[in-house]
Amino acid sequence: MRITAIYRIRCAPGDVARKAEALAVEQSVEMPVGAIDSRFVMDEIVGRVGEIADCGDGSFRVAVSLSAETVGGEAGQLMNMLFGNSSLHEDVTLEDTELPPGLLDSFGGPGSGIAGLRDRAEAPARALTCAAIKPQGLPAAGLAELTYRFALGGIDFVKDDHGLADQDYSPFAERVAACAAAARKAAEATGRLTRYAPSLSGNLEQLRAQVSVARGEGLDTLLIAPMVVGIPAFHAIAAENRDMAFLAHPAMGGAARIAPPLLIGTLFRLFGADAVIFPNHGGRFGYSPATCASLAEAARTPWGPLAPAIPVPAGGMTLDRLGEMLTFYGADTMVLIGGGLLAAKDRLTEETQAFVRQAAALSEDL
Amino acid sequence: MRITAIYRIRCAPGDVARKAEALAVEQSVEMPVGAIDSRFVMDEIVGRVGEIADCGDGSFRVAVSLSAETVGGEAGQLMNMLFGNSSLHEDVTLEDTELPPGLLDSFGGPGSGIAGLRDRAEAPARALTCAAIKPQGLPAAGLAELTYRFALGGIDFVKDDHGLADQDYSPFAERVAACAAAARKAAEATGRLTRYAPSLSGNLEQLRAQVSVARGEGLDTLLIAPMVVGIPAFHAIAAENRDMAFLAHPAMGGAARIAPPLLIGTLFRLFGADAVIFPNHGGRFGYSPATCASLAEAARTPWGPLAPAIPVPAGGMTLDRLGEMLTFYGADTMVLIGGGLLAAKDRLTEETQAFVRQAAALSEDL
Repeated sequence: MRITAIYRIRCAPGDVARKAEALAVEQSVEMPVGAIDSRFVMDEIVGRVGEIADCGDGSFRVAVSLSAETVGGEAGQLMNMLFGNSSLHEDVTLEDTELPPGLLDSFGGPGSGIAGLRDRAEAPARALTCAAIKPQGLPAAGLAELTYRFALGGIDFVKDDHGLADQDYSPFAERVAACAAAARKAAEATGRLTRYAPSLSGNLEQLRAQVSVARGEGLDTLLIAPMVVGIPAFHAIAAENRDMAFLAHPAMGGAARIAPPLLIGTLFRLFGADAVIFPNHGGRFGYSPATCASLAEAARTPWGPLAPAIPVPAGGMTLDRLGEMLTFYGADTMVLIGGGLLAAKDRLTEETQAFVRQAAALSEDL
Repeated sequence: MRITAIYRIRCAPGDVARKAEALAVEQSVEMPVGAIDSRFVMDEIVGRVGEIADCGDGSFRVAVSLSAETVGGEAGQLMNMLFGNSSLHEDVTLEDTELPPGLLDSFGGPGSGIAGLRDRAEAPARALTCAAIKPQGLPAAGLAELTYRFALGGIDFVKDDHGLADQDYSPFAERVAACAAAARKAAEATGRLTRYAPSLSGNLEQLRAQVSVARGEGLDTLLIAPMVVGIPAFHAIAAENRDMAFLAHPAMGGAARIAPPLLIGTLFRLFGADAVIFPNHGGRFGYSPATCASLAEAARTPWGPLAPAIPVPAGGMTLDRLGEMLTFYGADTMVLIGGGLLAAKDRLTEETQAFVRQAAALSEDL
């Protein structure tokens, strides 16, 4: 079984063959090939350069074939093989990967995927909606009050700000109990349960304890930042809890030297993200429309047995962009508006209602 | 208690005040400040812009003060506060941080530090030496044979290649038993135990199991790639095993948007690295001499109660550079030569002896 890693190398045309060979060695055996005696290592383990394509902009797309045996079935080690030392090379970007079916089966991907998120929202076709509770520093009761008002507005999902961890001013267990209760209370009024998704943080032991707290409150949706908790911990917690839906936050996923569609669209999905949050173009971050479109495509595209993940464009979004966003992404999208709703202050519930109503109406026009 | 994060922002002079304010908000409350009612949040939690210095090259150094309460004592959350969303901004690099004493105490830093590594090597003053066993794909017996020959050559430390995980061709437990035995066997001949440092990988549960295997073999030194296993897992395993020395590998530590001296020198040390491996200038990677010098300085500089970590320049080093490297870094350095020694093949032990001898001799001249 082979893995293909696709890199973009910026260099002079006369250097690309040599640089590609050096990269294939760097990402596999990382030693002088002449000093390798083992036939097995030479035949199977040393990376092989495949197609080299001139991108016409001073860079080249280079395919490198790696043995899937090097991964040992572990998520961190897959990242290491694809992006370990290459991340240290200024002139190299990891652009894409092709994985053999055996790896897809063993990593497993999203447990819920788009269908499971739609079930939770009782929304088979329209765009899904999401809001965020913040700022950090509010006590649990203040965050629960925001949850309640968002839920009264009929939002599908309310996520913790990714800065909410287990701080003294709103400890995880206290916050989750309060916000989950707020969502249930609102459901008595609206007849429909908004899913509150608490933000997980810490090491695997802490993550497991937090999932247990969330389960105790009847929650079935969670927020997690894979690059902050670490890929091995993210994959373990997702694989152990396939009935929970995971919204993946891009924090620390700095897109330098790895293409955002690959990291956030493809790899977060592979390791179990049901929804992938990313900075939409035209917001506070610099992703281009083309990058955003590719990322959404990577999250949703048919890929072996893996469920699709829903793209969640975010990062400074406002209600007046909703039409444009849905035209761009289609209805298999969860729209996340954070500060834009919170800025409505006393009118938060009404503004949320308008968001929810427009998302449904605009979905019908698509 | 306040944390200071120092960012470099590339922008026009007229934009820097606004961009700095936006960054301080992004890294703290991540919402419109006007929508915040809480006095506590406004006074304590919202990030504050401090000094802004014009670097004279189209960029500005900007100090942002953050509340230490936001960290909740957790390693991943500190990374999140410093570098979560800022990693997504193309024009922002995290350059440095100043942490309050309480955080240094709670994170703890290296358990062994330079003194503990020197004790292991019975070398109070000279430069330390390190080699690497590879390529991955060799069976455990082949890797053990290399360990034996390096140890006969008198090397201080032999580390696993960071690509060695728990693969079928050399499973962790089998490899560690074989290599540890090889080091002990060589010690019978040389009278001195070379420290074999196996590479840890996987999630916290897997890391704990691997540490247990290593302990069972009497090992006291380990290799780990903090960005591959994830910062929370790295910190947990280091804090739980303060009698073990941890060599930190830079894989996935792509230096884009975070300064290498900060990530690899300062933060890896804070979370428990006793030795920090990094790509030396003039090798296979593009770090400049100034970056390397700053990184070594960050690892060794007095910092509250934290033990110093030893810098380990590496990445394509060869014996003929030893004098220049020791002049550059001084004797509080561990020199890692990987492929350069392996390329000696049949003369591996002799070449290792030359490396060890020269490192000691050159240290005396410093």
